[in-house]
Amino acid sequence: MADDFDLYRELTTTATTKIVLLVMDGLGGLPMQPGGPTELEAANTPNLDKLAEQSSLGLSHPVGPGIAPGSGPGHLGLFGYDPITYPVGRGVLEAVGIGMEIGPNDLALRGNFCTVDNEGHIIDRRAGRIPTEEGAKRVALLKQIKLPDVETTVEAVQDYRFCLRLRGEGLSDRLTETDPQAVGVPPLPVTALAPEATRTARLLNDWVAQARVILHDHPPANMVTLRGPSADPSLPKYADVFKLRAAAIAVYPMYRGVASLVGMDVLKPFPKNLDDELAMARAKWADYDFFFIHVKYTDSRGEDGNFEAKCKIIEEVDSRLPDLLALNPDVLVITGDHSTPALLRQHSWHPVPLLLWSKTCRPDGIARFGERPCAQGGLGHIPARHILPLALAHAMRMKKYGA
Amino acid sequence: MADDFDLYRELTTTATTKIVLLVMDGLGGLPMQPGGPTELEAANTPNLDKLAEQSSLGLSHPVGPGIAPGSGPGHLGLFGYDPITYPVGRGVLEAVGIGMEIGPNDLALRGNFCTVDNEGHIIDRRAGRIPTEEGAKRVALLKQIKLPDVETTVEAVQDYRFCLRLRGEGLSDRLTETDPQAVGVPPLPVTALAPEATRTARLLNDWVAQARVILHDHPPANMVTLRGPSADPSLPKYADVFKLRAAAIAVYPMYRGVASLVGMDVLKPFPKNLDDELAMARAKWADYDFFFIHVKYTDSRGEDGNFEAKCKIIEEVDSRLPDLLALNPDVLVITGDHSTPALLRQHSWHPVPLLLWSKTCRPDGIARFGERPCAQGGLGHIPARHILPLALAHAMRMKKYGA
Repeated sequence: MADDFDLYRELTTTATTKIVLLVMDGLGGLPMQPGGPTELEAANTPNLDKLAEQSSLGLSHPVGPGIAPGSGPGHLGLFGYDPITYPVGRGVLEAVGIGMEIGPNDLALRGNFCTVDNEGHIIDRRAGRIPTEEGAKRVALLKQIKLPDVETTVEAVQDYRFCLRLRGEGLSDRLTETDPQAVGVPPLPVTALAPEATRTARLLNDWVAQARVILHDHPPANMVTLRGPSADPSLPKYADVFKLRAAAIAVYPMYRGVASLVGMDVLKPFPKNLDDELAMARAKWADYDFFFIHVKYTDSRGEDGNFEAKCKIIEEVDSRLPDLLALNPDVLVITGDHSTPALLRQHSWHPVPLLLWSKTCRPDGIARFGERPCAQGGLGHIPARHILPLALAHAMRMKKYGA
Repeated sequence: MADDFDLYRELTTTATTKIVLLVMDGLGGLPMQPGGPTELEAANTPNLDKLAEQSSLGLSHPVGPGIAPGSGPGHLGLFGYDPITYPVGRGVLEAVGIGMEIGPNDLALRGNFCTVDNEGHIIDRRAGRIPTEEGAKRVALLKQIKLPDVETTVEAVQDYRFCLRLRGEGLSDRLTETDPQAVGVPPLPVTALAPEATRTARLLNDWVAQARVILHDHPPANMVTLRGPSADPSLPKYADVFKLRAAAIAVYPMYRGVASLVGMDVLKPFPKNLDDELAMARAKWADYDFFFIHVKYTDSRGEDGNFEAKCKIIEEVDSRLPDLLALNPDVLVITGDHSTPALLRQHSWHPVPLLLWSKTCRPDGIARFGERPCAQGGLGHIPARHILPLALAHAMRMKKYGA
């Protein structure tokens, strides 16, 4: 079909039902040795196992076969968007990842501090990997740069990385990057890839020229490169397409940011841990139809390569499941945005365990939440973007199609 | 690919093999209580279970994730058509639903009787929900309306509803509806949404003006509104795309109508029950390659919310299975057009049990026809429109693709 969203706009209805999407980041795993269990299978999860018995299980594919997603595409899939059809630029992800708001008049870029010699040739593309506080000092200097008719915002990210946002009318992201991806040459100028981007290119080159002057006496970070220029992706919004008042509850800014791009309200004050997150859901239960609750540390421990620590995080979530069920959601989905097997220490392409509980689900009767039971489950092996329409149907929020 | 049908046109061949598609309407179900069986699982079905052991099982998705289909889209899927790519208009479904034929020169509309006051403002959009016989009396009056150069047919449907068909050259369905969806205002005129619909709009407004005069002295049904104008969807036909001489055998007109839209021959005299249907298949066995046999009451009992009665219908079908197998089909597919769980009393989005038997199938060896065995089956979880090409292949009616 041209766009599933036209169909969802037509079929979705408002209702009083509540949906919870609990995302355990990087949930999927692998055995550390042949014949062994995955992290989820090794963890002691009596509450999840009991819930699994009354649920439909399946496996979710975040993007496509063999594709390991970053956090942005991984969450977009879970939120119901095809991550290929709706790409989100690097600059925007960097911005929302540090809590910088991105709207329709914004252009966001990733910045790197670098080191240049007297002739302006790059000799270190990462400025000796200066620590975050050194980067922040230089970002403070860059804040004084002014451009005509646009508002500039610059914030430190980590180490030698920062984020630049231009805000104003008529900006375009049809631009080249300035990082030559090589040393011994100067940074490239920003070049317009379309006529409507000419002014934006000029503004950015002006910004870079001022940065060069300001940073001249601050080696090793005495110059910058700019990458991933990107505008607001203008994603269809939850309220419009799905008729959901949606709340995002997440400890890390990246996930709050991606949620804000689809129109979820980011709940404040920002939670510090899962108990905070559940308390916030409880406090705001009456105000929203849909709660996205994000658990970060399954992914972190997977990236550490620490199998046992990842199991422990899963067990911690399991121990809080009764608190979540006490809210009495009509539909509860538990899954991950991708796999992060401790064996691989990185995001992977493996499909992700998926559990959907509701009064209207067709239970598989398998009293175990794990990759292998999920591979046998009645939900099948589905693209992640199909999870939301399924949840809406189980929440009795989808009308019949046709007569 | 742009259209699977181009490929099927290229690959399908004629043969002497016979395919039977037995549709148990609304077959899929849900447990009435956690841990319980579905209707199909609870029913005592020794013949289906024995057949299942020699068959490939699977689950079929009629339209898409979370989407509960109406009867039209549900059957189009089973007939091999993507119900989103090939939408069938409301007027056409209403027409074929009462056995009115729809061809390439036809325009069909749903009509409602309504009540208007002395100023012509609608005061009841459903004319006090007059009974069917009152509607039929007024339809008899409306039959006298004549239009230039087109043939008009009007038939009562139920209560305050009727169906209007215009037949003639150059009609278009790019038209607005006349129901203002509100009271206190007059019915809207029919307006052309494209230049080629101007004449059709004028004809329909003429028809409505004559209806107004005729119905003036017949309150409460003293006016009409027209909805869902739709032309023949011009679906690719079975004989052309699949090289099948196809017969439709159904008790209810809706299903005969949808089958006629894809070019199946609707067998007469219309059967009254499953025994009639099987006798007709037997009588016409030599004349057709493909038999669509429809069982209505699994859906009806599901919509009644009567779990046990739905089980009984399934058991009745099971008891007739030996008669069906005695015809010696080469391929037998047994499935539903959607789920109608008694728990929900309505069509639902849950995938539908699917059984494909043929000498060339790869049997799962699961001696049970039910939702959970089907979730494990070798056919996988597939879109309903994939069933027909599978059946054609098992009937040795598909050539190899490529060298």
